[in-house]
Amino acid sequence: MGSYGETRAGIWRYHAAMTETRDSFAALDHADPLQRFRAEFDLPPGVIYLDGNSLGALPHRTRERLRAVVDREWGEGLIRSWGDADWIGMPQRTGDKIARLIGAHPGEVVVTDSTSVDLFKALSLALQVDPARRLVVSDRNNFPTDLYVAESLIAHLGARHELALVDSGEAALEAFLASRGSEVAVVMNTHVNFTTARMYDMARATAAIHRVGAVALWDLSHSAGALPLDLAACDVDFAVGCGYKYLNGGPGAPAYLYVAKRFHHLRQPIAGWMGHASPFDFSGQYRAATGISRYLSGTPPVISMAALESSVDLMLEAPMAEMRRKSIALCDAFIALVEAKCPRLEVITPREGAVRGSHVSLRHPRSQDVMNALIARGVIGDCRPPDLLRFGFAPLYVRYIDVWDAVEALVQVV
Amino acid sequence: MGSYGETRAGIWRYHAAMTETRDSFAALDHADPLQRFRAEFDLPPGVIYLDGNSLGALPHRTRERLRAVVDREWGEGLIRSWGDADWIGMPQRTGDKIARLIGAHPGEVVVTDSTSVDLFKALSLALQVDPARRLVVSDRNNFPTDLYVAESLIAHLGARHELALVDSGEAALEAFLASRGSEVAVVMNTHVNFTTARMYDMARATAAIHRVGAVALWDLSHSAGALPLDLAACDVDFAVGCGYKYLNGGPGAPAYLYVAKRFHHLRQPIAGWMGHASPFDFSGQYRAATGISRYLSGTPPVISMAALESSVDLMLEAPMAEMRRKSIALCDAFIALVEAKCPRLEVITPREGAVRGSHVSLRHPRSQDVMNALIARGVIGDCRPPDLLRFGFAPLYVRYIDVWDAVEALVQVV
Repeated sequence: MGSYGETRAGIWRYHAAMTETRDSFAALDHADPLQRFRAEFDLPPGVIYLDGNSLGALPHRTRERLRAVVDREWGEGLIRSWGDADWIGMPQRTGDKIARLIGAHPGEVVVTDSTSVDLFKALSLALQVDPARRLVVSDRNNFPTDLYVAESLIAHLGARHELALVDSGEAALEAFLASRGSEVAVVMNTHVNFTTARMYDMARATAAIHRVGAVALWDLSHSAGALPLDLAACDVDFAVGCGYKYLNGGPGAPAYLYVAKRFHHLRQPIAGWMGHASPFDFSGQYRAATGISRYLSGTPPVISMAALESSVDLMLEAPMAEMRRKSIALCDAFIALVEAKCPRLEVITPREGAVRGSHVSLRHPRSQDVMNALIARGVIGDCRPPDLLRFGFAPLYVRYIDVWDAVEALVQVV
Repeated sequence: MGSYGETRAGIWRYHAAMTETRDSFAALDHADPLQRFRAEFDLPPGVIYLDGNSLGALPHRTRERLRAVVDREWGEGLIRSWGDADWIGMPQRTGDKIARLIGAHPGEVVVTDSTSVDLFKALSLALQVDPARRLVVSDRNNFPTDLYVAESLIAHLGARHELALVDSGEAALEAFLASRGSEVAVVMNTHVNFTTARMYDMARATAAIHRVGAVALWDLSHSAGALPLDLAACDVDFAVGCGYKYLNGGPGAPAYLYVAKRFHHLRQPIAGWMGHASPFDFSGQYRAATGISRYLSGTPPVISMAALESSVDLMLEAPMAEMRRKSIALCDAFIALVEAKCPRLEVITPREGAVRGSHVSLRHPRSQDVMNALIARGVIGDCRPPDLLRFGFAPLYVRYIDVWDAVEALVQVV
C-alpha cells in the first residue's frame, strides 16, 4: 500500500484531490500494513493528534512499564534495583536500541541528559579533533537552540572559535566549504528542518564536510523514529537527538548522543561519576570509561529513561521502510488536499517526499488563531512563529482518515 | 520527644545501651511526632530501609502523581499539558519549593539536569565572578564526582585554573585561605561528607571564604531534606543538590541549582531554549531570561520532575526542626547500640549530632560481605570503598525499632 499511497499522492498533487472521499481514505487505512500499531497507543477519543513531532503519544506498554518501574523497581526494589533491574545498564542498553533506528553500530550511542547538553558535549568533542580550525558552521535556519548552544560554548571557550551561518541546503554548504573549508572544524546541522521539514542529504553533505577535513555533527531530533537513517553508511562523526518527539519517550525524555568509535578517545567537558571506568570505586582520580560510556555525566533519570526504552522497543517492531512509505503518503495526501481545498494556505514544505521529513508546514497570517480553532475541533498541531501552522504525521498512529478529517476541519476554520 | 531522644542518646553513649529493650524503642516510636509520615511511604514488608541517603523511598502520593502525569497529562492532554498542566512552570515551581527546604529566597532555585551538570554550570558561573583568581579549592575528601567535574571544567577552559585540595574541616580551610586567599576564585565543598557524615559549619566556612573575596559553592546532596539549611542567612553564593536522596524524588530525579540573586547577571555555559527570555519565539538570537530561569538549558524531564515535586510537597508538611531532632536521635541510638553490642566495628562518624548529617558509617574489613548478609536479612544499607558500611536514617520513615532491629541483625552477622 505504501507505494500505492505514493502513486495516488502523485495523482492528487496534479489532479483533483476533490474527487477523493473519506471512504477512499478509510480503504487506505484498511490496507495499511502498520495498522496494528495504532492500537498500541493510548490516544484520547475525539482527538486527531498531528503533533507527534513535538511530543509523541503514549504507548500502552510504556504506561505499564512506568508502573512497573515505579511500583516494583523503585517502591519494592529500592536501591537494589540498580543491579537487580539493571538500571545501571539502561543508558547504554537504550542507546544500543536507538542505534538500530539510526544505523549506528552497537556501542556508539548512549542515552543521557537533554539534547542541549548532548549537543554541548558533542560540539566540545568535535572542536578537539583539529584545534587549529576555528569555524563552527551551521545552517542559518537551524533549530535555534542548536545555535544558542554553539554560541554559548564558543563564549565559554574564550571566543577562540566563530559561528559561521550559511544558507540552507547542500549547495550553499558546498559553496561555503569550497571557499573556507580549511578553516572549518565542524558543520553542525539538523537533518530535518523544524519548520520547513526540508531534509538534508546526509550522505552528500557529510562527504562534502569530510572532503575539507572537517567533522559532521547531525541533530536527528526531527528525523529519528520517522524515517530511516544510516549514520554508519554516511560515515557520520557525531550526532544528537531528542527522545520525546517521534521516539515517543514522554515529555522531557532524555536525549541521546552518538559518537563514532574512532573518536572515543576524546575527552568530554562534564566528567561525572557515571562516565568513570569504575564509578563504584568512588576514586578521587577520574579515569574515563572506555567506549561511549565515558560521555555519561551524572546519575541517569531512570523513570524517564524507562519510558523511552519501552517506546523504542515498540518502534523496533515496525519495519522502518513501511514507516517511511506511509509517512510520505500521509504528507503527500495532506499537501494535495490542502492545495485543492484551502488554496489560500501556502505550503512551505517540499512537495517531494524524498527531501522531506514527516511534518508539513503551512503559512497563514493568523496561524495562532487558526490553530486554536483547530484544537477546539479536536485537531492538534502546533504553531511556529511568525505565521506557520505545523502538522506532524507519525506513521505508527496517524491514519489516512485523520488526514482527511484534519483537512475538513481546516477548511471550516480558514 | 525529640529532645527526650537526644537526652537518652547521651545516656546510651556513655552508659549501658545493653539495658535498653526493643520495647523502649517502640515507645519512642509511639511518642514520635513524625510518626504519621511513615504511612505516607510505600515501604516493602520485611525490609528495614537504611539507604534513603542513596535513593529515597517512594511516597504513595508520588506514585499517584506519576499515574496522573502519565495517564492524564501525557496520554490525554498530550502537547496541551505544557500549558494546561503547567509543565512549563515546573522547574521554577519545584525550585521554589526546594528553596523553602534550604532557606533560599523564591526565584533563586531551579530544578534542572543532573547534579554533575548543575555543578558544571555553578562552577562556570563562580569562575566568572573574578576572572583574575585562579584557584578552585575543595576538600580532598569531597564527593569524587564533584572533583571530576571541577577537573574537567578546568581542562575545558584551557587549564587557566587549578584545583587545590585541602584537608577536611573548617580549620584546614581557614589556614589555606589565610595563606593563599587572594588567589582563590571559589571554594566548592559538599556540606555533609558522603562517607564520614561530618558536616561543615556552613556559616563559618562561607564567612571565611567571603573574607578573602572568594565565592562559596555548596553541594547539598547529603543534607537537604534531612536537616535544616539556611542559605540566605549563610549568604551562600552558589549551591547544587540531588533530588533522589533525602528528597525522595525517585531514581535519577533531576537536580537543583541555587544561584544567589546578586549573580543572576552571569552567563551560563549551556544556553538552550528553556533559558531563553521567550523560548516559544524560536528566535535565532539568544536572549537570556531574567532570573534563575536563565540557567535552564533543554526541555525539562517532566515525568521525573513531577515525582520530585510531589515528594518535596510531602516533605514540606513535616516540621524540619522535628526531622532534625529525630535524625540526631536515630543516629545517636544506632551509634550507641553498635558501640555497646558490636565493639569490633569502628564508628567513623562524629559522635556529636551537631556536626553530623543523617547517616552513620562503620568500618569493617569485609564490608561488602557484611552488607550482603544484612541485605539477606532485610536490612538495606550500602558500602563505600574500601571498607565502609553506611546506614542512612531518613527521619520521615525510619523508626526507632528499625534502629534496634538493624543492630540486632548486625550483631548476628559480624
